[in-house]
Amino acid sequence: MTSSEAASAPTGWPPLREELRGLEPYGAPQLDVPVQLNVNENPYGPSAECVADIATAVAEAAGSLNRYPDREFVELRAALAGYLARDTPHDIDAAQVWAANGSNEVMLQLLQAFGGPGRVALSFAPTYSMYPEYARDTMTEWVQGHREGDFSLDLDHARDLIKERQPSVVLLPSPNNPTGTALPPEAVTTLCETAAESERGGIVVVDEAYGEFRRSGTPSALELLPQHRNLVVSRTMSKAFALAGARVGYLAAAPEICDAIRVVRLPYHLSAVTQAVALAALRHAPELLGRVDELRAERDATVSWLRGQGLTVADSDANFALFGTFADRHAVWQRLLDRGVLIREVGPDGWLRVSIGTAEEMATFRQALTEVLAQEASQS
Amino acid sequence: MTSSEAASAPTGWPPLREELRGLEPYGAPQLDVPVQLNVNENPYGPSAECVADIATAVAEAAGSLNRYPDREFVELRAALAGYLARDTPHDIDAAQVWAANGSNEVMLQLLQAFGGPGRVALSFAPTYSMYPEYARDTMTEWVQGHREGDFSLDLDHARDLIKERQPSVVLLPSPNNPTGTALPPEAVTTLCETAAESERGGIVVVDEAYGEFRRSGTPSALELLPQHRNLVVSRTMSKAFALAGARVGYLAAAPEICDAIRVVRLPYHLSAVTQAVALAALRHAPELLGRVDELRAERDATVSWLRGQGLTVADSDANFALFGTFADRHAVWQRLLDRGVLIREVGPDGWLRVSIGTAEEMATFRQALTEVLAQEASQS
Repeated sequence: MTSSEAASAPTGWPPLREELRGLEPYGAPQLDVPVQLNVNENPYGPSAECVADIATAVAEAAGSLNRYPDREFVELRAALAGYLARDTPHDIDAAQVWAANGSNEVMLQLLQAFGGPGRVALSFAPTYSMYPEYARDTMTEWVQGHREGDFSLDLDHARDLIKERQPSVVLLPSPNNPTGTALPPEAVTTLCETAAESERGGIVVVDEAYGEFRRSGTPSALELLPQHRNLVVSRTMSKAFALAGARVGYLAAAPEICDAIRVVRLPYHLSAVTQAVALAALRHAPELLGRVDELRAERDATVSWLRGQGLTVADSDANFALFGTFADRHAVWQRLLDRGVLIREVGPDGWLRVSIGTAEEMATFRQALTEVLAQEASQS
Repeated sequence: MTSSEAASAPTGWPPLREELRGLEPYGAPQLDVPVQLNVNENPYGPSAECVADIATAVAEAAGSLNRYPDREFVELRAALAGYLARDTPHDIDAAQVWAANGSNEVMLQLLQAFGGPGRVALSFAPTYSMYPEYARDTMTEWVQGHREGDFSLDLDHARDLIKERQPSVVLLPSPNNPTGTALPPEAVTTLCETAAESERGGIVVVDEAYGEFRRSGTPSALELLPQHRNLVVSRTMSKAFALAGARVGYLAAAPEICDAIRVVRLPYHLSAVTQAVALAALRHAPELLGRVDELRAERDATVSWLRGQGLTVADSDANFALFGTFADRHAVWQRLLDRGVLIREVGPDGWLRVSIGTAEEMATFRQALTEVLAQEASQS
């Protein structure tokens, strides 16, 4: 029995919550395809030196795996604070940092602490498709405003919606997924101020999962932390840091916000092994981040090339590009897959998202898309 | 600012959910003390061979950490199914197994799927103190029945309470924490049948976190899986398996129940590293479990010795013993701590819980407790 059959079983068995019945588990297809450009992974794995250092760190931790891990992951919080310091002129202290098993868990914990029944979480569509799931899983009402045609934020609309709906959590990805759109700092400031004035004093989460890929001149929201006690900046080691398999997400915020999360976190949520791997990887930050400039250049080249084909492409500060529009995007997606290139069918109708891979992978993508577009043209 | 100060901040900042304000984060004190007998850890770490195998497995996984892990952890589910097969004459298939970051996350996922607003989760006190937190975090109503004076289940009361409150989830630890009390299989059968007859057909979770320590003659509830589609048997690698630091909990149940959990699990919740570590550890199962018999013998000896001191001790099928009763248990706990022995102040008033450590650690515990009891006697 597949999950969808089980979830929609008409017998009412198993006794899944009514609102979950018939729902598909979240996640892109995990297919074994030569060129995987579908989940915004970094195409470059760690070096042999980094792998060896990770293995040594884990071997060290493994000797006492019979003991529970440090529940407060003090060393990791300090190391992450040190890493973040490169993106802001202000000090970031370990007490301002929190981490969990992927940004997913960080966001869930934020909604567990600050959302819940009778409360509202708010974002602006199109945006990351997991956000409504965090809200659903914490019984938080999910409200979505809209974005402009170019996927930038309509600041007046955003401000009005916050005033109207009084959210306790505002989720603002920058750059946005799946559009790649970064938020100007003035927008962050305005929305933090608006949320602070609301009934409860809502928090504003700027989700910088792809923050390291931002174009030069786009500052990180980390710079604004001293000015807004309700600002949370979340990050992940999955993307620029090339560590998707290790599942480490984290955030920087006022220490009071980290302390509040401690009330809802599951005790010992971060394993001793995860802590050891993350610490070892952070020691190799220059290497792991070394390919970011290359990927940014490849991203800009991909955007230009797609535009050269007559396609519309959203400006991107991330390691992916959203392009379109297609009358039948699924057909285009399938034809690319037939050519061994897996991209993602996501975002507004008619658009497709391609992750930025190696130069070779992007050449294969361009070749495949050229063929598919030619096929489309000959059929129309 | 400590978390408790933050959580109880009278200003209402940060905007924590009202019902969470003033709450302490869950967890025993993590103190650096020579003899740690407070969180039911296995005192024996893995061998050098096992550590080396874990490091090799992680090094292999680390080479592709830039990629997301197998979201379905197929290999691990199969290995866990193989491991469970030793405790039941019936087949256990990989599709019947689910795993997460510790039993904590397994339980939270179960309550996310099957609990929620308007639904009831039910157990019998005294029992594991995290259960009400899972209920709280999923907005599930928490109902607690009682146990007999010897901490066994009052089956008539249990059945009546299930009929009355129609829980969608019944949590039955066996052995129970913190009392060590195992459930007879007849009780599991009766309560599974009663829950199945209820309005929604509730699930019954037999939490066998300490199952491997059960006394001979006590069967695992795994044997009953083919008879009850609403039975879930949860386990952990933290205790008998000596892998608390790796955070791997799991369960066996009908495939439909595993499929239902997939709807609420965060995508990629189990890291590639966690999967690799668990798989390596499972290859060393005989070694890691080799000390279980020794710990069971030490447990029985500890229970006998405590009774020899005139103390009341609950029968234990676990790797801990609950003993008492003391007019001022905190004073006894503190005096043991002053002697370098950390145990746990948990369970009904007047009782204390000691985890079973090495023979040397238990000798130190006995010596310290002898001194404390003599001090108590001389003062009274």
